[in-house]
Amino acid sequence: MKVGILGGGQLARMIALAGHELGFQFITLDPTMAPCAASVSQHFMHDYNDTTALKQLAELADVVTFEFENVPAASAELIESFTPIYPSPVALTSTQDRLVEKTLFQELDISTADFAVINSLADLQTYACDGQWPAILKTRSEGYDGKGQVIIKSPDDIESAWHQIKGAPAILEAFVPFEREISIIAARSTHGETCFYPLSENSHENGILKFSIARANDPMQSLAEDYVSRLLDRLNYVGIIALELFQTKDALLANEYAPRVHNTGHWTMEGAETCQFENHIRAILGLPLGSTALIGHAAMFNLIGKPPEITDILSISHAHLHLYDKEPRCGRKIGHINLRCDDKLMFNEQLNLLLNLTKLSNC
Amino acid sequence: MKVGILGGGQLARMIALAGHELGFQFITLDPTMAPCAASVSQHFMHDYNDTTALKQLAELADVVTFEFENVPAASAELIESFTPIYPSPVALTSTQDRLVEKTLFQELDISTADFAVINSLADLQTYACDGQWPAILKTRSEGYDGKGQVIIKSPDDIESAWHQIKGAPAILEAFVPFEREISIIAARSTHGETCFYPLSENSHENGILKFSIARANDPMQSLAEDYVSRLLDRLNYVGIIALELFQTKDALLANEYAPRVHNTGHWTMEGAETCQFENHIRAILGLPLGSTALIGHAAMFNLIGKPPEITDILSISHAHLHLYDKEPRCGRKIGHINLRCDDKLMFNEQLNLLLNLTKLSNC
Repeated sequence: MKVGILGGGQLARMIALAGHELGFQFITLDPTMAPCAASVSQHFMHDYNDTTALKQLAELADVVTFEFENVPAASAELIESFTPIYPSPVALTSTQDRLVEKTLFQELDISTADFAVINSLADLQTYACDGQWPAILKTRSEGYDGKGQVIIKSPDDIESAWHQIKGAPAILEAFVPFEREISIIAARSTHGETCFYPLSENSHENGILKFSIARANDPMQSLAEDYVSRLLDRLNYVGIIALELFQTKDALLANEYAPRVHNTGHWTMEGAETCQFENHIRAILGLPLGSTALIGHAAMFNLIGKPPEITDILSISHAHLHLYDKEPRCGRKIGHINLRCDDKLMFNEQLNLLLNLTKLSNC
Repeated sequence: MKVGILGGGQLARMIALAGHELGFQFITLDPTMAPCAASVSQHFMHDYNDTTALKQLAELADVVTFEFENVPAASAELIESFTPIYPSPVALTSTQDRLVEKTLFQELDISTADFAVINSLADLQTYACDGQWPAILKTRSEGYDGKGQVIIKSPDDIESAWHQIKGAPAILEAFVPFEREISIIAARSTHGETCFYPLSENSHENGILKFSIARANDPMQSLAEDYVSRLLDRLNYVGIIALELFQTKDALLANEYAPRVHNTGHWTMEGAETCQFENHIRAILGLPLGSTALIGHAAMFNLIGKPPEITDILSISHAHLHLYDKEPRCGRKIGHINLRCDDKLMFNEQLNLLLNLTKLSNC
């Protein structure tokens, strides 16, 4: 059985590593010379718009998936005309435009932050008349890891913000005074079977995820499952999905969803009975989904930029290092560390060690 | 960092899969066309005696290891003259000859079954005068998975047994009325750091391992650790080692050791905090060794020949499937299933399910 993946970065790498354990083979399509998934897959170096390459991938693979949501929808649709691609292209197009995504949330009665549609500087100025500040201006497309977002503190910042996003179609979102950022990772298989992981509680810095902690029996678990179930059903979704949420004093607001395996689910590699990467493979191949049960306590720390000394990491008895074989560069995710431990006290001790270790070394 | 591996079978495959998680790269040398490690490594198709290929491997790799003990000692020594190879060639040569191996055990005060050296039919006939039966005739070299072994029930079988092993140099071993077959997996790093996994209790059928169960706090753990420590020290050993033992009513007898990752240690993939494959990599690269603590209860079932339906396996909530991407063939190991569970009752329930499932389908 051969699985094709659009994209050859760390998510494709981890999907392939999990899938090899099940005996499957992988083909990645990625325009770069030696993406980090190339060493665990057959790699085609072609552009995502190269129709010949896309057809070749569709022909060789029994099923195709992708590791990032900015895959051109037309490319996904081209593949779909030859071979199954999961999640389906509609799940891609809904998340490639923040306005479409927010509208979908509203249709499904999933709470979100208030927002306004911004197509011009005039729209921003109109909002300024009776709007509340601070607010966040977000381009409708191509935003990730905090890119394409500008915080507007007062009407004085309007013009500069509009220039910063280069006048792209946008939405303006009310600033959410959240207590926690959480996410839920779920899966749905080709047979409609679903499963849900325990919530991840996430900490970001400069728009980039720093660490996630798995939360057993979280009071928000059932509402989060309810939200993501509505999405799974509506989109007739297949594969792993991640729904990012803000918890405020009295509400749970959906921020965005990612139609793919997700950074906030990396703790599942050692922390859950079946990791998100394996369940993604199981889901798209129509196999029974694996148990999502948490094993003890679990957390994940991103390694961004220059990593700490490898011996310092591996000396922590319950730390599990995952490096992506990428050259360190400021702001670049080059790996992560999972922490998994049955004992709560030891977990907290090693959590603090890792917080300090990753704080010192990242840039 | 690049790791070279002599051999491209499932053990090399699992070493590479574990090592990719740490960000390392792998080169395998194997004379077959598409060994199952080829999809997760750069594969050189050359004979193990090809000095040009061996030199090339030594040049490209920062460190070399092997996945099977019948690597020609001269090849290992050739590599050693260019780049570090672990375990060292002396650990290979000691285990390639059963007589050398048994003698080493004796020198280290590690108990073994009684044995006699057999170089001719006359030696067998001499033994028959006052020897005990049944006894097992084993060729001194090239035996694995029960190959090169003949049980002699009475002196009448002597001639036929001698012909079966084609008159190869051999030893004749007293039949051990064992209560249990166990093994201990241990590691020693280039810095001399050691670690020991909980004992595996093993069941064989026709000389091939069927399943292993990890035993927490086994009464034999400390003596087994003592035995294997003597070996590690004497051989100045680096990497994972497996020592196979027979427990009789009142003794623990060493059978043989394998200078490599071992089938009876596969349960460590999900069942231990750090698996044997990762600890092998850590050991040969001089990194701190990982915790060997058992996580709940764990067992491993080999898949030999035609496997059960994949959906039947994956429907068992705590079963973890590992397929090696090998064509099923009668008697061929094509994968294994690990079982890991915190709850003892559920563990036993699923253990029985898997015993039945693997019993029905194997050949």
